[in-house]
Amino acid sequence: MNHISNYFKSLQEDICQQLSDADDCIPFIVDAWKRPEGGGGTSMVLNGKKIEKGGVMFSAVEGVLNEKAAKGLNIQAGDFFATGVSIVLHPTNPFSPIIHMNVRYFEMDNGLWWFGGGIDLTPHYIDPDDAIFFHTGLKKVCDLHDPSFYPTFKTWADDYFFLPHRKETRGVGGIFFDRLVAAKREDKEASFDFVKAVGESFCSLYIPILQRTFHHPFNDLNKKWQYIRRGRYVEFNLVWDKGTKFGLETNGRTESILVSMPPMASWEYDHQVENGSPEEFTLSHLKKGINWI
Amino acid sequence: MNHISNYFKSLQEDICQQLSDADDCIPFIVDAWKRPEGGGGTSMVLNGKKIEKGGVMFSAVEGVLNEKAAKGLNIQAGDFFATGVSIVLHPTNPFSPIIHMNVRYFEMDNGLWWFGGGIDLTPHYIDPDDAIFFHTGLKKVCDLHDPSFYPTFKTWADDYFFLPHRKETRGVGGIFFDRLVAAKREDKEASFDFVKAVGESFCSLYIPILQRTFHHPFNDLNKKWQYIRRGRYVEFNLVWDKGTKFGLETNGRTESILVSMPPMASWEYDHQVENGSPEEFTLSHLKKGINWI
Repeated sequence: MNHISNYFKSLQEDICQQLSDADDCIPFIVDAWKRPEGGGGTSMVLNGKKIEKGGVMFSAVEGVLNEKAAKGLNIQAGDFFATGVSIVLHPTNPFSPIIHMNVRYFEMDNGLWWFGGGIDLTPHYIDPDDAIFFHTGLKKVCDLHDPSFYPTFKTWADDYFFLPHRKETRGVGGIFFDRLVAAKREDKEASFDFVKAVGESFCSLYIPILQRTFHHPFNDLNKKWQYIRRGRYVEFNLVWDKGTKFGLETNGRTESILVSMPPMASWEYDHQVENGSPEEFTLSHLKKGINWI
Repeated sequence: MNHISNYFKSLQEDICQQLSDADDCIPFIVDAWKRPEGGGGTSMVLNGKKIEKGGVMFSAVEGVLNEKAAKGLNIQAGDFFATGVSIVLHPTNPFSPIIHMNVRYFEMDNGLWWFGGGIDLTPHYIDPDDAIFFHTGLKKVCDLHDPSFYPTFKTWADDYFFLPHRKETRGVGGIFFDRLVAAKREDKEASFDFVKAVGESFCSLYIPILQRTFHHPFNDLNKKWQYIRRGRYVEFNLVWDKGTKFGLETNGRTESILVSMPPMASWEYDHQVENGSPEEFTLSHLKKGINWI
C-alpha cells in the first residue's frame, strides 16, 4: 500500500457511502480478500432497490509480472504493483442507465508507471438529456486539467466501448484513457490529480440521473428490452473488454472481475425493434462520433 | 454445396422434425441467410414448451481464408469451404440438461480437408443416470468406428469444455474431435461415416432425457440455480469457446453464432451452495476425468 492505493481505498468507501445514502441507506456487503501471490482487495456489493446489483471494487496487488502478461502489456517482465477502483452498477429501472467507472495506477520495479481509467454510461433507453448532462460534466472535469483531454479521451471511449460483432457502441460513451503520465512534470502528482478528479466526479455524474429515473414507469416490454441490452453488456465484457480478458486469462480473482455481470440478462434470436420506437431510437444512437454536448 | 453439405442440410431438417415432434409439435422458425462473401445457411429456432430456446443451425460457406484466419487455424491462406450443423438447446425445466452438438467439415483449395465435431451435455443438476445413459450411447457410436475414439474424444471433451477461471467443466462432457481424417483410407468416406453416426445419434441421446425430465417439479431456488448455471454457459461460450471467438472476430454471422446464448441467465456475486445440497453435488462433479460408464 502507498499513498495512491490509500487514496483509492478511501475513494471506494466514499462512493459506497454516497450510493448507499442514495439507495434508501441499504448497506453494501463488504468482502475483503487476499491474493496468494501478494496484495488483495475489498469487494463492496450492493443488492439495493434502485441499484439491482452494484459492485464497487478496490484492489492493490503486487508480485511478479510473468513473460506472457508482460508481453500482453508490451513491457518488460519484472515486479509490479497495481491498484485501482472499478465500478459497475446495474440499476433496477430500465430507464436508469448502467454505469461503469475505473481508475487505476500501475508501476514496475524499473520505474515505469502510468495511470489509466474511464467512465462510460450505458442506457437501456437513450435519453439525450442524460447523455448531455453526463458528457458536459465529464468535459468540465477534463478541461480543468488539460483542454485536449475531453476530445481525446471521448474519442478513445467511442473506440474502446464498441462491439464490432454488433456494429454498435456499448452506450453513449464517456471518457477512456490509458498509460497516462504527466509529461510536463517530473512527479506523478499531476496525473494523479486528474485521476482523483475523475473518481470524485462519479457520484455527481450518476446519482442525479439515478434519482431522476428510478421511479420512471415501465412495462414488461421495457423490462425485456433491459434484459436484452444487459446481454450486450455481457458480450462486450466477455468478448472485447481487455481488462476482463486479461484478468480471466491470468488467474485474476474471478468473482471480483465478473461482478460486472448483470443480475439477469437475456438473449433472443434476431430480436427486431419497431420502427419509430424508443428501442429503435436507442439503437440508432449507438454510434461512434456523436457529439453529445 | 456438395454431398457433405447436402447431407448436413438433411440432418438439420431431420433433427428439427424429431425435436418438434417431441415438443408438442411446435414448429421451428426457419431463417435462411446468405453470406455476402459466399455461401449461406439456414437457422432453425425453436421457442418451445420443453425447450425454452433451441437453435439448430446449418451453414455452408466459402470464400477466401485471409492470412489472420489462416494463421489462427495454423494453415496456409487460400480458398476454403466449410459446412456443418450446430445445435444448442436450452430446456425450460431446470432438471433437463442443456445440450450442444456440432458436426463440421472443412476444406481448402490445396486439397487439405478434415472433419470435426462433438456433443456435450450440461445439466443444471447432474443426474448420474442421465450422464451414464449419455456416455454409454456415445461410446456405442464411437466403438462401431474405432475403439480408440471414445476414450480419446471423451478426454478431449473434458479438456475442451472447461472453464479455467471457474476451475470447473461445463457439464458432464461427452466427446470432442477436430481435424479428423481417415488416415487408413484414401477417401474421406470413413471419417464422414463416423460424423454421420454422431449426428444421427443426437436425438436418441437427448430426447429420452428430455422426456424423462421435462415435467420434473421445480421451485424458485431450482430456477435461480438454472439461471446461474446458464451464466456459466455464457462465460464458456464467450470467453473460451474457440468457434465462437473465431466467428465473432472474423465477421461471422452474429445471430447464428450467438443463438447458443440462453434465453435468460443471471449472475450473483460469490454465490455459495449449501453443504449436501443437489447444487453442491453438481459442482463437485464438474471435474475432468470422471468415468461415467
